[in-house]
Amino acid sequence: MLCYGPCCRSQTPEEWYFRPSHRDSDQSLHPSKFQLGAAQHGESMTDSVVTFKGYRKRAVMPNGSNILDAAGRLEIGISSPCGGRGLCGKCRVIVEDGLQNLRSASPIELTSLCQDDVKKGYRLACCATITRPGNIVVHVPPESSIKQQRLLVAGIEPPIQLNPPVHKHVLRLKPTTLASPRSDVEILLDALSSQTGQEPMAIGHNALTQLPVAIRDGNWIVTVTLHQNREIISVEPGNKENRLYGLAVDLGSTKIAAYLVNLNQGKIVATASSENPQIPFGADIISRISHASKDEKSLQQLHGVIVAALNRLLRDLCVEAEISPSEVFDAAVVGNTAMHHIFLRINPKFLALSPYPPVVRSSVNVPVRELGLKASPGSYVYSPPAVAGFVGADAVADIIATEIYKSESPALLIDVGTNTEIVMNDGHRLMACSCASGPALEGGGIEHGMRAETGAIEQVYVDAENLEPGYKTVGGGAARGICGSGIVDTVASMLKCGMIDRNGRIASSLKTPRIRPGFKQLEYVLVWKAETSTGHDIVVNQHDIQAIQLAKAAIYAGTAVLMAHLSLKSRDIEKMFLAGAFGTYVDPRSALMIGMYPDIPLNRVQFVGNSAGSGARMILLSKEIRMKAERIARDIGYVELGADPSFQREFTNALYFPHREISLFPTVDELLAK
Amino acid sequence: MLCYGPCCRSQTPEEWYFRPSHRDSDQSLHPSKFQLGAAQHGESMTDSVVTFKGYRKRAVMPNGSNILDAAGRLEIGISSPCGGRGLCGKCRVIVEDGLQNLRSASPIELTSLCQDDVKKGYRLACCATITRPGNIVVHVPPESSIKQQRLLVAGIEPPIQLNPPVHKHVLRLKPTTLASPRSDVEILLDALSSQTGQEPMAIGHNALTQLPVAIRDGNWIVTVTLHQNREIISVEPGNKENRLYGLAVDLGSTKIAAYLVNLNQGKIVATASSENPQIPFGADIISRISHASKDEKSLQQLHGVIVAALNRLLRDLCVEAEISPSEVFDAAVVGNTAMHHIFLRINPKFLALSPYPPVVRSSVNVPVRELGLKASPGSYVYSPPAVAGFVGADAVADIIATEIYKSESPALLIDVGTNTEIVMNDGHRLMACSCASGPALEGGGIEHGMRAETGAIEQVYVDAENLEPGYKTVGGGAARGICGSGIVDTVASMLKCGMIDRNGRIASSLKTPRIRPGFKQLEYVLVWKAETSTGHDIVVNQHDIQAIQLAKAAIYAGTAVLMAHLSLKSRDIEKMFLAGAFGTYVDPRSALMIGMYPDIPLNRVQFVGNSAGSGARMILLSKEIRMKAERIARDIGYVELGADPSFQREFTNALYFPHREISLFPTVDELLAK
Repeated sequence: MLCYGPCCRSQTPEEWYFRPSHRDSDQSLHPSKFQLGAAQHGESMTDSVVTFKGYRKRAVMPNGSNILDAAGRLEIGISSPCGGRGLCGKCRVIVEDGLQNLRSASPIELTSLCQDDVKKGYRLACCATITRPGNIVVHVPPESSIKQQRLLVAGIEPPIQLNPPVHKHVLRLKPTTLASPRSDVEILLDALSSQTGQEPMAIGHNALTQLPVAIRDGNWIVTVTLHQNREIISVEPGNKENRLYGLAVDLGSTKIAAYLVNLNQGKIVATASSENPQIPFGADIISRISHASKDEKSLQQLHGVIVAALNRLLRDLCVEAEISPSEVFDAAVVGNTAMHHIFLRINPKFLALSPYPPVVRSSVNVPVRELGLKASPGSYVYSPPAVAGFVGADAVADIIATEIYKSESPALLIDVGTNTEIVMNDGHRLMACSCASGPALEGGGIEHGMRAETGAIEQVYVDAENLEPGYKTVGGGAARGICGSGIVDTVASMLKCGMIDRNGRIASSLKTPRIRPGFKQLEYVLVWKAETSTGHDIVVNQHDIQAIQLAKAAIYAGTAVLMAHLSLKSRDIEKMFLAGAFGTYVDPRSALMIGMYPDIPLNRVQFVGNSAGSGARMILLSKEIRMKAERIARDIGYVELGADPSFQREFTNALYFPHREISLFPTVDELLAK
Repeated sequence: MLCYGPCCRSQTPEEWYFRPSHRDSDQSLHPSKFQLGAAQHGESMTDSVVTFKGYRKRAVMPNGSNILDAAGRLEIGISSPCGGRGLCGKCRVIVEDGLQNLRSASPIELTSLCQDDVKKGYRLACCATITRPGNIVVHVPPESSIKQQRLLVAGIEPPIQLNPPVHKHVLRLKPTTLASPRSDVEILLDALSSQTGQEPMAIGHNALTQLPVAIRDGNWIVTVTLHQNREIISVEPGNKENRLYGLAVDLGSTKIAAYLVNLNQGKIVATASSENPQIPFGADIISRISHASKDEKSLQQLHGVIVAALNRLLRDLCVEAEISPSEVFDAAVVGNTAMHHIFLRINPKFLALSPYPPVVRSSVNVPVRELGLKASPGSYVYSPPAVAGFVGADAVADIIATEIYKSESPALLIDVGTNTEIVMNDGHRLMACSCASGPALEGGGIEHGMRAETGAIEQVYVDAENLEPGYKTVGGGAARGICGSGIVDTVASMLKCGMIDRNGRIASSLKTPRIRPGFKQLEYVLVWKAETSTGHDIVVNQHDIQAIQLAKAAIYAGTAVLMAHLSLKSRDIEKMFLAGAFGTYVDPRSALMIGMYPDIPLNRVQFVGNSAGSGARMILLSKEIRMKAERIARDIGYVELGADPSFQREFTNALYFPHREISLFPTVDELLAK
């Protein structure tokens, strides 16, 4: 089996099917990182105790809260892509005891759950509201559990000139005397000015509190840390010049990747990642925004869990690198604009309302103490600039890491996610847009969709003769569902084999037992139930295909609008960067087959992994890169697709596989002709 | 009865005795302000419950802590001028139950307490260590209780040009559109620049979090608050231009005076004061420094109680003025250098060690959130510059309020306290020093000394014929002890009547039952026990007189050293400002009689009350005054008395009443001759 990741890009397109998955070698996180105790408030006579079987966790919950709230508090991952709004029906749990303490099943639940399941105690966690104090015992079935997800922390990183905004100086101080009494600050600033030529500067409150003891403990030798050559943010006793670290974070809606970097050497000293603990509050950005906008407390809650997660990652990184978190003097956090706002405790409500304005686009330096981040208490978190409400600092980091801004020939960058950012350079200027590609490409909103976790079908190949599929699961075991790359493979295969037409309609006339009428629509059985771990057939149905159509049409249409703005044709694009987890794992041939991106030669496609993380590291390490990021964010053209007159037409045309105008996709045309 | 406060300065010296006390009209604080619940940590099997009878308060305390710790946690004021070091014997309490749970009486206690008292359950609170878990019931007898102290919040205040560093602008914003999407920050900064001509400026994190909701709630009209024309610290919806308040605080070792000021009008809108809740940790500065230097936790503790007290005062002020604490956008806090350091959570340890360097002398602006002060979350506390380790920002505030720096003829400022600051202007330049005058002038370290609380003898007049005293107590009831002004009156009277000689020795040959041998020394009975509320005779003994001698000698010697440095004689001084509570209540004739300050005509003496508080208000209200404060602190000459060769000689000479060289005190010489 072959690979067409950055490592194996020389393979021919024909050799691509059945590449080995790089995912298999992902370094899994130790499960202990997800078993942290949760804060519980005091128990009172009006509270219930909700126990989660198999997790050894229980929460004391007031009347009016629900099972999903309890899971959220305990950081137990229950699928809830709709954000607990009773829409998706994914948060199925089995209440094994205490059903009488819950409100009886709502109409929503009776629609989502079959009669048998209801008898067995199945409920939707978001609808199961506690009405009476007592004990409730809950079992989370495998189909609802967000198991530990394998996360992508790698990425490219072009070489840069090391010049971080924080640096250290060792100072020898002149002790004060009775004859000429001077304050510690005066002594320090004099030494700084005479020994380093630094201008007099502000001294932060943290440094002020460290100063007197540091001076005496260090026997009149201290190490100061300067931020932006403007402020002394720390004073340590003795020579601590070598202890200068920074934290770079890619704050994704789904995953968080964190890197501990030695700022003297520019090297990563430890890497860690975790799920975004906000997932229980909504899988997609809009659900999160909706939760965070409810009230001050909800915003604080989403902000709090993300900061707590960063603090856990920071602690783990520091343990691994054998340093103290107080030796981390800078941080750069990138994320989409919603994540950015919530992380900074800024209400993201208006990001979701037309005209979708971000509160702040420019970069900000926020004291870590304002956010509760447990790095050196005087230090700042740098949050790079964003382009627009849905083209965030993560996209800016992508641009930095791929260096697409330097390209002198047309280049394209697509960072696929629930929200897909698209950046194009025509060789002279950058232009960006963002499209809502929905959760389908990450397995959301799909009948048997799931994230790329153990048991997810990630690769599919269908035999054109007998229409029998081959597939591969994450981890290699029995199939549990199907993730984004698997769905794209399936749809591409179905198209190639004629099981669907270019409208996406499933053909009902083919002689195969795998195509059959489902509950309301035709479906293709990918895995018979005997081979699954769920005991149900795993199918891709007409609705799933439609979801993929919508997603890929949005991405293509966004790309097409940018191409039109920059007067480019598909073949002009000399380089395409595919970023993000999906963008790394998807079979680009399948993606091309369904028309997700313009028909360009596959050797122009470069997989860049988590380039937002790479960009965050570069931003952490260099003042020049920060200035570059500011310039990029300021100068980049932005197209608001909702306001662009051609977008709707492009989108409608792109709903066809691969496109209404097949001539735009000669490669696919040729393959279909075969 | 007459007064010689600022109101009645026209009275002749002869009319001064038996002036009515301005204290009587002090506005007492409502007792509820001192009954706040205290934080208690969780109870465990190794904890004891200490209940204070009559206070309705109990604390859960671990083994190893003592009764004074419990009182401190509950903010129950128990006298402990030595800071709980087992030295002063003032923290007597009666353990009514649970004696078996305490370590048995220590040798220190057996020395301080008589056999009878020990039998009655008397213990020293600081020595009564809990050794076994259980219940302990404590009664605090009147002699140990720090009752609510009447505090001085008045002060002079010269007119100033209003120009506070914070100000507000109402802005009409241009809504963003889909065609040209802009961030909230861009819209705000554009409006600020176009409508007010302000340069683009930083936007603080608090303002950032307020911005999106303020814009929409205010229907695109917002009010921004600018700090130093450099940073937007707050954004409020609609027009809130009139709601601009500031907090000025004089943070004394003993009392805290707080003023809520309308920054648009420069007027005080509410005034409040309270005891410094650090008193249980030590009455004098050195004890506080000693406690705060123990470890990080102790510093945090002293810092925490002072911030909590400020927050209570702020809340009370805001309730009175019917505003929200979030409408308080600036604060200026003055205090001696130790108070300053502890308030800013800076370790004050080295202030007490030669060469007594302060950590910081220059002014600092610290974000309120760093300190936990609950004003508008984006605002800053301004802490004015200090002169030296023991001449703090309070002295600078004194200088500002008295305008002594403007004087073109020689002037003297004495702010009497445990630590007395002395400032002199020879008409050309300022010079300052500080002397440890000890607690005697505030009733500390005196056999029956007490603070100026209800029952304290504050004025004394002795009949020269029969040596019988007349006296007046604070509140007018039965005497409980004697406060600073009463002691000074007594000593001056004794000197005048020949009961003590110029060495301070009590004459044993006089025919009066009031002079008698005490336990170890002669004593003068001021009040027979029948007239007291304590059931003991109230006496002034030889040791008390010695304490006053030491205190007044230190103050005079400091003044003399400054006069020598500036080549001035007593008669050259054309104005003397007496500041601070003692300095306002003491009879200046008595103070002159004992030689506390140079012999100058009494009509040159001006009582300025709490001029540090007045200075804090002026500093709050004007950027120019802040710059003036910076200049004063930078340019003022400072004499470290410990390093001055003449101080010891001056001090020894000043130990005499009024001075070894009587020719320096012609007024006293004349009176004594009578």
